This record gives sequence, C-alpha cells and structure tokens, in this order.
Amino acid sequence: MPIRMEKTLKELAELVGGEAAGNGDALIKGVAPLESAVHGDITFIINSRYAAALSTTTASAVIVPPDMKVADRNLIVAKNPQLAYAKILILFASKPLPPKGVDKRAFIGRGPRIGKEVSVYPYAHIGDNVAIGDGTVIHSGAHIGDGCRIGERVVIYPNATIRDGCIIGDRVIIHPGAVIGSDGFGYAREGKRHFKIPQVGIVQIDDDVEIGANTTVDRAAFGKTWIKRGTKIDNLVQVAHNVTIGEDSIIVAQAGIAGSSKLGNNVILAGQVAVSDHLTIGDEVMVGGQSGVISDIPDKQVMSGYPAIPHREWLKASATFSKLPEMRKEIKELEKKVAELENILKAS
Amino acid sequence: MPIRMEKTLKELAELVGGEAAGNGDALIKGVAPLESAVHGDITFIINSRYAAALSTTTASAVIVPPDMKVADRNLIVAKNPQLAYAKILILFASKPLPPKGVDKRAFIGRGPRIGKEVSVYPYAHIGDNVAIGDGTVIHSGAHIGDGCRIGERVVIYPNATIRDGCIIGDRVIIHPGAVIGSDGFGYAREGKRHFKIPQVGIVQIDDDVEIGANTTVDRAAFGKTWIKRGTKIDNLVQVAHNVTIGEDSIIVAQAGIAGSSKLGNNVILAGQVAVSDHLTIGDEVMVGGQSGVISDIPDKQVMSGYPAIPHREWLKASATFSKLPEMRKEIKELEKKVAELENILKAS
Amino acid sequence: MPIRMEKTLKELAELVGGEAAGNGDALIKGVAPLESAVHGDITFIINSRYAAALSTTTASAVIVPPDMKVADRNLIVAKNPQLAYAKILILFASKPLPPKGVDKRAFIGRGPRIGKEVSVYPYAHIGDNVAIGDGTVIHSGAHIGDGCRIGERVVIYPNATIRDGCIIGDRVIIHPGAVIGSDGFGYAREGKRHFKIPQVGIVQIDDDVEIGANTTVDRAAFGKTWIKRGTKIDNLVQVAHNVTIGEDSIIVAQAGIAGSSKLGNNVILAGQVAVSDHLTIGDEVMVGGQSGVISDIPDKQVMSGYPAIPHREWLKASATFSKLPEMRKEIKELEKKVAELENILKAS
Repeated sequence: MPIRMEKTLKELAELVGGEAAGNGDALIKGVAPLESAVHGDITFIINSRYAAALSTTTASAVIVPPDMKVADRNLIVAKNPQLAYAKILILFASKPLPPKGVDKRAFIGRGPRIGKEVSVYPYAHIGDNVAIGDGTVIHSGAHIGDGCRIGERVVIYPNATIRDGCIIGDRVIIHPGAVIGSDGFGYAREGKRHFKIPQVGIVQIDDDVEIGANTTVDRAAFGKTWIKRGTKIDNLVQVAHNVTIGEDSIIVAQAGIAGSSKLGNNVILAGQVAVSDHLTIGDEVMVGGQSGVISDIPDKQVMSGYPAIPHREWLKASATFSKLPEMRKEIKELEKKVAELENILKAS
Repeated sequence: MPIRMEKTLKELAELVGGEAAGNGDALIKGVAPLESAVHGDITFIINSRYAAALSTTTASAVIVPPDMKVADRNLIVAKNPQLAYAKILILFASKPLPPKGVDKRAFIGRGPRIGKEVSVYPYAHIGDNVAIGDGTVIHSGAHIGDGCRIGERVVIYPNATIRDGCIIGDRVIIHPGAVIGSDGFGYAREGKRHFKIPQVGIVQIDDDVEIGANTTVDRAAFGKTWIKRGTKIDNLVQVAHNVTIGEDSIIVAQAGIAGSSKLGNNVILAGQVAVSDHLTIGDEVMVGGQSGVISDIPDKQVMSGYPAIPHREWLKASATFSKLPEMRKEIKELEKKVAELENILKAS
Repeated sequence: MPIRMEKTLKELAELVGGEAAGNGDALIKGVAPLESAVHGDITFIINSRYAAALSTTTASAVIVPPDMKVADRNLIVAKNPQLAYAKILILFASKPLPPKGVDKRAFIGRGPRIGKEVSVYPYAHIGDNVAIGDGTVIHSGAHIGDGCRIGERVVIYPNATIRDGCIIGDRVIIHPGAVIGSDGFGYAREGKRHFKIPQVGIVQIDDDVEIGANTTVDRAAFGKTWIKRGTKIDNLVQVAHNVTIGEDSIIVAQAGIAGSSKLGNNVILAGQVAVSDHLTIGDEVMVGGQSGVISDIPDKQVMSGYPAIPHREWLKASATFSKLPEMRKEIKELEKKVAELENILKAS
C-alpha cells in the first residue's frame, strides 16, 4: 500500500506535539518502521537500545525520545515516539473515502434510524428498528439484529454478526466474523438432559472498543454482558454471558473469560489465558500467556501458570520443573543413605 | 428486553409441575433472577445458601426447593427451581413471530423440499436438493450446502455455514458463524510435502444439539463426524473429522477434540480442554479446564492437568508446584548434611 | 456420498506409480478405508501392524507397502499406500462441476480482472480492482476486499473474508469463516489508554496453502504477514501481524502465533500451541500439544510443555509431576531423620 503525501518536519512535529530538530523544512513523503524506512520517509526509534540505527538508517527523519536527541539529524523529539509515529501514520495512511450511502442491495428492516454519511454495503442485513449513528460503515454480509443501537463512526467489518438488542458505542470497530450477542451457554439439568435457559439479556459495548476477528461475545442470561470504554479485544477470544470487562483493558488472542466474571480497568490477559466463572479480577492485573485463573486476583498483581500464582514464583517453579526426575532420584538416594546411617548408629 | 405478561401463581406452578404456596391467585407479570427481581416478578432460589434472600427480595413470588418451604411467602415449591425458572422464562420471553416464508432475496437452488412455516431470510444461500423441516428458521447470510437435510424447528443463525451433504436433526440450534462440514485436516506425506486426502464423509448432528458461535465441526474423511442427541457445544470449539460425541454432553468454549476420538454420553469438557486423536472417553467423564487428554479415560472419571491425571491428584500436585524451588534447596541441604554425617561416621 | 466408477486394478496401479499384483483386470468400483471397505472396493494398509486385515477384509483389492506383498490377493504395491489411496480417492470422488460463471446476484466492484472458468456464487462480494485467476471458485457470502489478487484454481468457501490488498497464490483453499487481512493487534500507549496503530501491511499466502475454518490471519503493521508454499493451517488458528510461516508446515487447530515470529519450513505445531512474539523457530521443529513457546528453537528440535523444553525431558518431568506431594513428604521425613541422626552424633 503506497503511503505518499508531502509534509514538512515542522508540520509533523506540531501534529504530534513534539519538537522538530535539524531542518524543520525537510520534506517528508512517507512513513515506515526502522527496518524498511528509506530516503523521504520518517521513522521512529523507541529507546536507546536501537541508538545505532540513528546513524545507519537512510530515513530523512527520525522520531526519538528526549534522551536520544542528537545534533546532526532531522528529528522529531517526542516523549512517546511510537505514539507520534502512529499519529503521523494515520495522517499518511488515511484514505478519506466518501460515504457510500445505503446500497440498494442491503436489506433494511422496518423503522430504521440511519445517521448522516453512513455506508451500508451490499448484502448487509439491518433488522427492524435499528439505529445507526453518523459516519458509521457496515460492510457486506454484516448482520445487525432487530433493535440494535450502533453509535457514530463505528466500523462493522464483513460477515460480523450482532444479534438483536445489542448496544454499540461510538468509534467501536468490530472485525470480520466477530459475533456479538449470541446466546450464553446456560442450561438447567433435567435428569440427565440439559434444558436451555433463555438468554434474555444483551451485550453493551462502550466507546472506542475493538472486537477482534471471529471473537465471540455472548449476550447475558439477564441484564448485560458489558465491555467498557477503550478495551481492545484480539481475535478468537471468548467472552461468556454476564462478563464485565473494565476500561482500557487488553485481551490477547484466544483468551477466554467464563460466565459472570468481572475484570477491572487496564487489565492485560495474554494469549490463550482462561478465566473461570464468577471471579473478580482487579485493576491493572496482568496474566501471563496460557495461564488459568481459578480464583479472584486483587489489583496490580502479575500472575502466571495454572492455577495462576504470582509470576515470579511461577518463573522459579517452572525453571525447576525439568529437574523433577533428578530430584526424585536424589530423594531416593538420600533415603538409602539415611537408612544406612541409621543402621550403623543402631549397630554401634 | 421487557418481559411482560400476566399469569397467576397457580397457573405457573401447574406449568412447571410444582406446588403453589401462599396466594395462588397472585398475579405474576415478570420473571427475573434474584439480584434483579422486583415487585410483580417471580424469581428463584436454588438452595438454602441463599435462604436470607427469601425475606429480603421484593419479588412477588419465589421458586424454592422443598426444604425451603416457608409459611409467609408466595412460593412455587419445585424439585429443581432452576429448571422451573427456565420453563417460566420461556413462557414470558418467547416472542411467537409469524413465519416469514422464503424471502425472495434468498438464493434457493434446484429441487428444494421446504416444510411448512419456514423462515428463510435475505441473502441466505440454500444449495441444490436441500430438505428443510417444518418451522425451521434460516437467518441472513447462512449457507446450506447442496444435499443437506435440515430437521424441524431448527434455527440457523446469521453467517453460519453448513457445507454439502450434512444432516441436521430436529430442534438443533446453530449459532452465528459456526462452520459444519468443513474439510477434515488430513494429508498424506509426499516427500516433504503434504498431499490433501479428499474428505468425502459428512457431519451428522442429532436432535436437540446446540453448536456455539464460530465453532467448527469438520466433515469425516470417510463416514461421518457425529454429534448425538442433546449435546451442547459452546463457542469456538474445534471438533475434528470422524469424532463422535455421545448424548447430553457439554463441551465448553475453546475446547478441541482431535480426529477420530469418541466421547461417551454425559461427558463434560471444561473450557480450553484438548483431547488427542483416536482416544475413547467414557460416559460421565469430567475434564477440568485447560487439561490435555492424551490417553483413554474410563467411565465416570474426573481428570485434570496435562497430561490429564485424576483430578484429586492433580489438585494436590498443583498445590505443591510453587514449592519446587524450595524443595530443590531442601534436597541440596539434606545431601550436604548426609555427606557430613557419613564423614563423621567414617572418621569414628 | 456414493463414490462409484469402474477402473481396473492395472489402471489404478499405473495412476499411483505402483505395481499391480494378482488379477490386474479386476474391476474396482469404489474406494474406502479398511474398516468400511466391501466387495468392489479398493482399500489400503499402511504397515504390517494391520497385516491380519489383509486376509479378513472383503475388499476386492488392497494397496500395501512392498514388505507386505503376498501371493493370494489383488494388490497394488506402493511405497506410500496412504498417498496412493489419496490419489485414487481423488479420481473416484472428484465431481467435475462445470464453472458457474459470475452469478448476477454477486457484487462485483469496479475494474475486475476475472479469469476463465471462474465461479462466483450469489452474495459474494468482490471489491474494486480485484484480480481472480482461471478456475477459481468464490462461494456465497465470501468477501474479497479492494485490490486483492487471487490466483488460479483457488477455492474460497462461504462467509470467508479477505480484506483489501491481500495476495493469494494458486490452488489455495480458504475454508468457511476464515478471516485474512484483519487488522493486527497493535496500539501505542497514551497515558492509560491505547492508541490504535494503523495496520498498513497486507497478508501474502503462497501456492498450495490451506487456511482452516474460522482461522484468522492478521495483516502486517507494515510489510506483510506471509504464509509460504504448501503450509496447511487447521481451524481456529490465530496468526498475528508480521508472522512468517515457512513452506510445508502444519499448524494444528487452535494454535496461536504472536506478532512477528518466524517459523521455518516443515514445522509442526500441534493443537492449542502458543508461540510468543518475535521468536525464530527453525526448520523441522515439532512442538507438542498445548505447549507454550517463549524462546527461539533451533532446527529439528522436538519440544513440549510451558515453557517448552525438549520433549523427552518434558515426558519424564510430567510423569513425575503427580509424585510431587509424595516427594514433599519424603523430604520432610528425611529432614526429621537427619536431624535425629545429628542429635545422636552430637550427643555421642
């Protein structure tokens, strides 16, 4: 994807709230990461570990943190070079497409309330009494169930499904194939059989949330499954009924959260983590990859393993794991030696 | 979702085969779980652990088990209060929509046999020679391949895919994005390359099965992958080719069952469990979350861990895991002390 | 699915490069695995472990390896009986459907370049400036984004999504619900919030690759996520941004590979394996089921566990795991005994 326009270094520094150093009038025509940036590009260095690259890259300018400011280079000095890079990349990469309107091959149910500058692509399905906010894009094959309320500047990618009654905030992104509002997995026993408990709640997704490709978020048995502002969920994640996830949390691919568990703000679950049902996970908790959480975790803990224990303990125990057979042998030998010593002493 | 109608306590008791106590003519206008039930609602208490709520809830009636019958309350006394609740909830929550018929924007192949009171939504794709039973609902974007046979009162949610030749029983629910009948993962080695073995079998799903959102069930290499009556499968589960799952089993989210394994009746696999290929898992087996099963399991065992061992053993061993570094140190110290003792005795 | 045609044993031997033994004119009318083959069928035996079946099967012919050649049977002697079986099965099972052309109910954007003998089914969505090679089949509900290049004889199954700009080689198979080119999971911190980094790269999938049902392959942050020739990926696998997977690798269901990791050729990841980000996995590496890889692996290693260690070590350590409580008790007892011995010696 060619990313080409022209801005001066000064203009870009202003955009990101940074300081231009070197030739502020230098023309920047592209943006690229360090390993692929060439003449004309601006790139970024995140910390002094990559300092050597500052003299070897052929990029026309580099975004650096304050402690890496040097005299002989076109720079933008910024507290958070990665953030500055992201903002410049948006400027260069954004393709301001004109809104498409509602394609006549989309299905629109009764009583729609559709905002301005909306795009609805062919073969999307909008149920009855759906509200869609200004600037929202609904791609082909996406399904919006009856009574859903979709915010402004939302993007719903192809073949995503949002079942009836769900509420989606502003600037939410739902990636392809994601499913929002499928039935929670709830049954009453009837002898040896399972009797389905109707799942009459909804899913509420607040502003600035992202839901990854083929991720599933079940509707509540009653009330709501709730994902709060700014939380980002990766691909193939399972969020069960009545789960609450706080603000600005990060749920990495293939993690799963069982029914009614509540996660705090700024939680990070790494890939393939499992959280059992009805648990409370505090704010700023981090859980390492593939861990299994089966009890509550207070704020700010870093946990790993299954069952999850403090990460440092887990690191040490894991490092010892491969020594288990050796340890067992040592114990057996000790037992033999101690028995011999006991015999000698008894005999004496 | 407002759930509103009016029934007397007596009428509801009769519906669920329970006994009305208190004012049998009390009007019930809604149904809700304990934490959200208000005046006019009926709710339920599952066991005496929640007995205190019986005096604090403002609900107009409570479903209780026989040992919790009290004098001063409108009650339905039922052996299984959760089951009674589910049945009343269905009564209140069901929205008897008139069948939509086959929308003219759905694609219908040659030779369809479509029952009465069927709904096929826009942009659904029904292949050639498909049979669809009475009362079945096929949502938008769902794909039914050539030659499939779909039973009565089945619901196939949006963007689910059922490939050709599969057989779906009565009252089956296929949630959004689920894939039934994709090719099994089978290859013959040809030098260093992989030569695809055609997967010429089907998937057969028996009555009353539920398949979760974005779950995948591969078609058999030959013969059939078979999910038997009453089994409930959660979201994002993988069922490989030629697997058989018995009746009334529960497969929780993100579990995976490898090729040709056979599970019995009333099996429970918790979340993220993996079952290796060509295994036999007996009836009423339970496997704990994230466990990895790599050998056969006889009936009625409860297993955990990877490789899975009896759950009680696993509980004890897991509790000891974090002590590993300490144990290693203790062994080293013991070795030193024993060596000293040996030296002393040798010297004496 | 009835698989019926007529070939002589000689003809089939020639097809697979094997040697016909017994009656070369015997008519073969079907093909089936050992457990279901009947008179008229050809079947196969992979090695001498199943030698007894050679005399009990009622199949009309058997494909066997050279060391199992016997006098009294119609045989095809082939170095790799499974491969020969697969080739014969293709002959019998292939249904040469005439290409359907582009259905008028499919959406085709501007500037399409569509090859010969292509099939595009109803409600497929082909974006602007898409190229589709000869003989390719795009099923209903599949989405091909703007600017994609799709090779020859590709099959894209229903409800799969390929977002804009991706490149798909020849003979690639994309199973239902798979998502190619969704945004990578990349954010810059902005205080406690997460600022989305535009994902401006693509996905490139080379010839003869297979992508399983509901598998997700994210587009690169910059550059490309790359899956090389002949690699086969099972269902529900997560491939993160900027990952490279070499040639002829096998990624089993529900495995996940985090950002920027590079896998070599002929790698095998078993089910539910997780590979951390920015790692290098060598050629011909095998990783056991549910393992967690958190550091680089050189060529030809077999690894298991989390963190992954050499498979043999892991086997031994795992076998000892359930002994942990017993070992702990033994250590405590040894400590007591050694203390007693020390006391005795001190006293003497």
